[in-house]
Amino acid sequence: MSINKVKTLWAEGKPVLHGWLSIGNPFTAEIMAAQGYDAISIDIQHGALDYSAVLPMFQAMRASGVTIGARVPWLEPGIIMKALDAGAMNIICPMINTAEQAAEFVSYMRYPPHGQRSFGPTRAGVALPGYGLRMNSEVLALAMIETAEGVANLDAIAATPGLDGIYVGPADLTLGTQEGRLAPGFDREEPEMIELIQHIAMVCEKNGIKACLHCGTPEYAAKAIGWGYSLTTVSGDTRLLAGAAAASVKRFRDLTGTQEAPAAGAVSKGGAY
Amino acid sequence: MSINKVKTLWAEGKPVLHGWLSIGNPFTAEIMAAQGYDAISIDIQHGALDYSAVLPMFQAMRASGVTIGARVPWLEPGIIMKALDAGAMNIICPMINTAEQAAEFVSYMRYPPHGQRSFGPTRAGVALPGYGLRMNSEVLALAMIETAEGVANLDAIAATPGLDGIYVGPADLTLGTQEGRLAPGFDREEPEMIELIQHIAMVCEKNGIKACLHCGTPEYAAKAIGWGYSLTTVSGDTRLLAGAAAASVKRFRDLTGTQEAPAAGAVSKGGAY
Amino acid sequence: MSINKVKTLWAEGKPVLHGWLSIGNPFTAEIMAAQGYDAISIDIQHGALDYSAVLPMFQAMRASGVTIGARVPWLEPGIIMKALDAGAMNIICPMINTAEQAAEFVSYMRYPPHGQRSFGPTRAGVALPGYGLRMNSEVLALAMIETAEGVANLDAIAATPGLDGIYVGPADLTLGTQEGRLAPGFDREEPEMIELIQHIAMVCEKNGIKACLHCGTPEYAAKAIGWGYSLTTVSGDTRLLAGAAAASVKRFRDLTGTQEAPAAGAVSKGGAY
Amino acid sequence: MSINKVKTLWAEGKPVLHGWLSIGNPFTAEIMAAQGYDAISIDIQHGALDYSAVLPMFQAMRASGVTIGARVPWLEPGIIMKALDAGAMNIICPMINTAEQAAEFVSYMRYPPHGQRSFGPTRAGVALPGYGLRMNSEVLALAMIETAEGVANLDAIAATPGLDGIYVGPADLTLGTQEGRLAPGFDREEPEMIELIQHIAMVCEKNGIKACLHCGTPEYAAKAIGWGYSLTTVSGDTRLLAGAAAASVKRFRDLTGTQEAPAAGAVSKGGAY
Amino acid sequence: MSINKVKTLWAEGKPVLHGWLSIGNPFTAEIMAAQGYDAISIDIQHGALDYSAVLPMFQAMRASGVTIGARVPWLEPGIIMKALDAGAMNIICPMINTAEQAAEFVSYMRYPPHGQRSFGPTRAGVALPGYGLRMNSEVLALAMIETAEGVANLDAIAATPGLDGIYVGPADLTLGTQEGRLAPGFDREEPEMIELIQHIAMVCEKNGIKACLHCGTPEYAAKAIGWGYSLTTVSGDTRLLAGAAAASVKRFRDLTGTQEAPAAGAVSKGGAY
Amino acid sequence: MSINKVKTLWAEGKPVLHGWLSIGNPFTAEIMAAQGYDAISIDIQHGALDYSAVLPMFQAMRASGVTIGARVPWLEPGIIMKALDAGAMNIICPMINTAEQAAEFVSYMRYPPHGQRSFGPTRAGVALPGYGLRMNSEVLALAMIETAEGVANLDAIAATPGLDGIYVGPADLTLGTQEGRLAPGFDREEPEMIELIQHIAMVCEKNGIKACLHCGTPEYAAKAIGWGYSLTTVSGDTRLLAGAAAASVKRFRDLTGTQEAPAAGAVSKGGAY
Repeated sequence: MSINKVKTLWAEGKPVLHGWLSIGNPFTAEIMAAQGYDAISIDIQHGALDYSAVLPMFQAMRASGVTIGARVPWLEPGIIMKALDAGAMNIICPMINTAEQAAEFVSYMRYPPHGQRSFGPTRAGVALPGYGLRMNSEVLALAMIETAEGVANLDAIAATPGLDGIYVGPADLTLGTQEGRLAPGFDREEPEMIELIQHIAMVCEKNGIKACLHCGTPEYAAKAIGWGYSLTTVSGDTRLLAGAAAASVKRFRDLTGTQEAPAAGAVSKGGAY
Repeated sequence: MSINKVKTLWAEGKPVLHGWLSIGNPFTAEIMAAQGYDAISIDIQHGALDYSAVLPMFQAMRASGVTIGARVPWLEPGIIMKALDAGAMNIICPMINTAEQAAEFVSYMRYPPHGQRSFGPTRAGVALPGYGLRMNSEVLALAMIETAEGVANLDAIAATPGLDGIYVGPADLTLGTQEGRLAPGFDREEPEMIELIQHIAMVCEKNGIKACLHCGTPEYAAKAIGWGYSLTTVSGDTRLLAGAAAASVKRFRDLTGTQEAPAAGAVSKGGAY
Repeated sequence: MSINKVKTLWAEGKPVLHGWLSIGNPFTAEIMAAQGYDAISIDIQHGALDYSAVLPMFQAMRASGVTIGARVPWLEPGIIMKALDAGAMNIICPMINTAEQAAEFVSYMRYPPHGQRSFGPTRAGVALPGYGLRMNSEVLALAMIETAEGVANLDAIAATPGLDGIYVGPADLTLGTQEGRLAPGFDREEPEMIELIQHIAMVCEKNGIKACLHCGTPEYAAKAIGWGYSLTTVSGDTRLLAGAAAASVKRFRDLTGTQEAPAAGAVSKGGAY
Repeated sequence: MSINKVKTLWAEGKPVLHGWLSIGNPFTAEIMAAQGYDAISIDIQHGALDYSAVLPMFQAMRASGVTIGARVPWLEPGIIMKALDAGAMNIICPMINTAEQAAEFVSYMRYPPHGQRSFGPTRAGVALPGYGLRMNSEVLALAMIETAEGVANLDAIAATPGLDGIYVGPADLTLGTQEGRLAPGFDREEPEMIELIQHIAMVCEKNGIKACLHCGTPEYAAKAIGWGYSLTTVSGDTRLLAGAAAASVKRFRDLTGTQEAPAAGAVSKGGAY
Repeated sequence: MSINKVKTLWAEGKPVLHGWLSIGNPFTAEIMAAQGYDAISIDIQHGALDYSAVLPMFQAMRASGVTIGARVPWLEPGIIMKALDAGAMNIICPMINTAEQAAEFVSYMRYPPHGQRSFGPTRAGVALPGYGLRMNSEVLALAMIETAEGVANLDAIAATPGLDGIYVGPADLTLGTQEGRLAPGFDREEPEMIELIQHIAMVCEKNGIKACLHCGTPEYAAKAIGWGYSLTTVSGDTRLLAGAAAASVKRFRDLTGTQEAPAAGAVSKGGAY
Repeated sequence: MSINKVKTLWAEGKPVLHGWLSIGNPFTAEIMAAQGYDAISIDIQHGALDYSAVLPMFQAMRASGVTIGARVPWLEPGIIMKALDAGAMNIICPMINTAEQAAEFVSYMRYPPHGQRSFGPTRAGVALPGYGLRMNSEVLALAMIETAEGVANLDAIAATPGLDGIYVGPADLTLGTQEGRLAPGFDREEPEMIELIQHIAMVCEKNGIKACLHCGTPEYAAKAIGWGYSLTTVSGDTRLLAGAAAASVKRFRDLTGTQEAPAAGAVSKGGAY
């Protein structure tokens, strides 16, 4: 059995419930890790955090048994390897548009002779005694397809040796393929988007890799599982917190018949991504 | 009109919807401040944070128009004045058991000759230009009654000049008065606890101060408003986040018929306070 | 009216007074934001800070109404997009030497189909509800010309579609063009440097974009406004603090006739950049 | 020669120029330490910082040769000893109103049998090899007199064995003695305040201890030296930064004839303490 | 079996090997927690850290199975309860000189009706699901005897109901009882100190509580186990790191015949406590 | 004499004893800087830290007289220049495989006309007054050779103008050249690895640059000095701390005949890199 629960579940043919962290705090990470997700990733790209928050968050989740990962900001070797050294088992890399970029990404994930990852798992070696070359077959490389160019090169990207899956972000995929015709967002219902999302799953299956989808609700995620997706991210800490707080506020306002007090300079309620 | 929205609402006879922060992060504070609470306090006592987190959290909430406050760890002048200097408009002080303690608490909140607060609003003076002696009548001092001794001295405490209200924490109040007969928790339904909670509201009203209650749900808070409470805390960031994430996980599990993967050393799901 | 005060002022034909932050602290940011600048940028390149400081600094300035921005360390998409997601309205990118680099820079600033910015304004969306594609026309892309190659390509760079202005850093511009003949520094008085600085303003005007200049004093900034510059940075937090403290010390020494006490290992007084 | 430059200067009959830090950042501390102050203290009471900022600030100033100290939030042994263990040579303790409090304060500063300081200079022992009992005669205990009660007990307080000086904060002294008749602030010019400030210096001299004064300007500090004060704090980082930035902004506005752009929700310019 | 490994080992009649953390960093905590200690405490009193470091350090050690604790700075309820809420199972409180202080200390450790601890294990409840009143019998209260007064009251202190043990710090105990005749330090060899240390163990045994000793070496700790001590702290992170590095440097210097390069302003090698 | 002690020692024909920091904490840095190393570098690549920790660590080591440096994560100009601006005198750049990469690396280290480093030593200018163009000849550029491609291009890389030395990391060098036949690690004893390591020293000498080696023990470092190496890193903070703690634990266990208590979920002892 792999120490990467995502690999184990996939080997058993089961879908993975994936959590998402955009708040740079080890306590929120510890709370999220206690809720029953199979795996959780920290969003270093769009999350309100950087590496200095990632390390204590990984440490705070270690006891939970949740498999940890990260989305990196870009195809940059420095942060990819730092996230791995901190203990990430899965790396999601945004904006992979060509097979060359996919191969470059994969090479950063594995030690020679299978790649060009530099050796020095300083923290990972403390958390996972014996961490070493065997990690080459434990860590998962997930490439994001989010542009028209990426879609055009989908087959070649999916055929990249060492790539473990495609991770779909519906907001960028919509922006990148629909020429501004549709607003960004999760849980697409437009037929052309559903078709594209289903198509990606099929190409993945054909190439023996896994399809993963970023979702806003459990309902959409369940639907995606039915389409052949093997991992679904179901909301994230900022949306969950903002949504639960807003619902609680609304319920109180309704029950008590009160309205929010007017405030000079107050902004309207923002939705968190 | 006061710059303290709690005072303004109370002057208008309206109840205050109060939020609660236990996560030490300025981004969660900014998210919470956007959801429509009238006032929000940072829990320096039981929250997973200290002063070093309070300052950037206060700064992050400044633009929202929400009135900010803090619960301090204990009746200790150092942290009470530091919270005020950081910009807190309301201070909740735990474990006030006697009128002497209430008077001591109140004295830390006001500049001479009305108290013994030391002058130096270094940060508050940047955020609130003109911050000075007039703050004596802007900041609110809320004392917590949570022990048998405190209940016995309730009338004397409530009569303390300068005290603005009583803040009730049902968990400690239960522990402190029921001799271990009842488990701690919010939203008490036992007749003796409801009676006590109502009694506190009446004593406050008699003494011309406000009663405030820490609640777990909007429903209970609405009920408390009916009992004469003027401010209700309705859940907090950790419970909201944990609850929303757990509900999302459960919904996904139900829809997909999956169970959480077993993990060596995994802990069961913890409830956040 | 734009929410970017720089755009609004430029539309009105007015110059922009721009502040500069090199200290990684939200309280200094809040202090600076209260002094009357139209816009303030955080220097992630040469400032003593990184992203982990940028976020709470942006939050601390939000209430002030100052328009915020950042100078990024290099033409690297990861940090450019993270600064935007954190809420930066203006990005200054150093070392743009060719039109290709300028086009690449601009592409990172805008969502498709106008660029390749990835969508996910997690924090910006909380601070600016409704943050989305319309930001394409709100954020400003300012390229730095600081090498001989950049000067040689000035016209082509200035003609880059989507580029909003050229930001001139006199220290690097001097180093990059004068073959080591002149020492680096601000507020150049050499005729060849003044000519070059004026030339850049003219090229900008010809291409319908704005010229911006990093200055050390209000006097030089005012002169640059006269040369056609539309935004001038007038000193920064480190220089202002060091200068004011040094002047205060000198005044005390003069008044009291004292000298600094000799200290083993003491260094001489350093100038902050 | 003492390693505490304040002691050395006092032994030579020279006044001490004292700097003040309210910004919780090691880079501002390093900048300030390079400007020529004899000694610098971190304001843990009213500064926008706590212990977690004090340690790296002390480290950042170590190389400068400046003698470091701290004002603690209150007469609380925990933070007094932590500041000493971090390397503080001088401790300023606010709100000493009685000889008993002064004796208690002094006892926290010295190891047995001269006091009750606990032994464990973990960090100080790294920075100052050999740190140990001899520090009993190196560290300085400075008590603040700021209330009517404190003034009434001035002689008794000043006679406390082991007390090294009285530190006067004019803002609190004014509030504490003038019954709200005068606004708080530095650099008092009212005859009754000058008389009181001079009186304190005389009582100190009579008791063989030193008088220290918190000032806003070099001019007032020089005047205080003339009154017999032996240490003067001359402004602080927040006031210096805010003042220099505001002056730079005003100069630019005057030179260019521009006004600050109006901003929705913008606050007016705050003065930093 | 208790979840507190110290209790379990004591119940089995086995001594406890206790580690010590004075560096405020979650990675050093994670490294130390992997080395085989039964329990580890963070020194909030003399360590170079405060609460803001304690929380991520506790989180980083959670997965290791090591039982965690803290030494608090002083008998102050705020920090004692914050350390418990963060998850500390054992609290060492310095400077307990009387039975009254011992009783006060014990009262802060337990929920009513057995004490006055306030309820709200926000973080502990996430790490230890079900955290609640049963913790009254899980957490250990260890009082430090370090003054002549404390020694004089030893029997009365040891008889305090709810006190679990006496923790001896030889440095302070020496200072506090020997009138400055002996230098502070660990691993005392003077007959009068050995006698005192053995006496404390006997008094503990007589009162049915445990004796604990802070040691500098495994050798001394083993000797103390022979004297009846039930828990020994064997060095700490700062001493271990400094000692190992100094030994490595010396070995290289000896092998290569080189000397440290002279440095202007260089300090001699400091020993860490 | 150079202000870079590495240059001075090399000019005197002496080897440099080099320390290594992977823990992101200013206090561990201060401790390490007191142990007698000639120079110390912070490992931003594999260390558990990023820029936000580097700055206070550099500040904490400033007073020690130790020459400071950094290993950057990758050949990325942003972080190389930020490390220099923070005060690094030596930069170690990983994964230099070609002469072109070596030249690019060198160009980031020097100001024009000798390179393309951007001018703005904001913090370095405070710590080193007068910091400026003369630093071009003070800072050292050390390239890592760690792949088969790098070894193949060794002569060309070593001949790069402005390159000061080759830094050898035996773990990556083994992985990169031995096709997975040998496990990664320090202090190689295989004849083919010793031959390669010796070969690199010879090529360096031929090209007038210095060879530097990362070692695990003083013994191996001394051997490398004999092979012509001019700088040896002798262990690092994480290995020193873990090794000393593990040895102390083992000694106690042996002396007392105890075994580590079994812990649910406890991990085995990890070795730190």
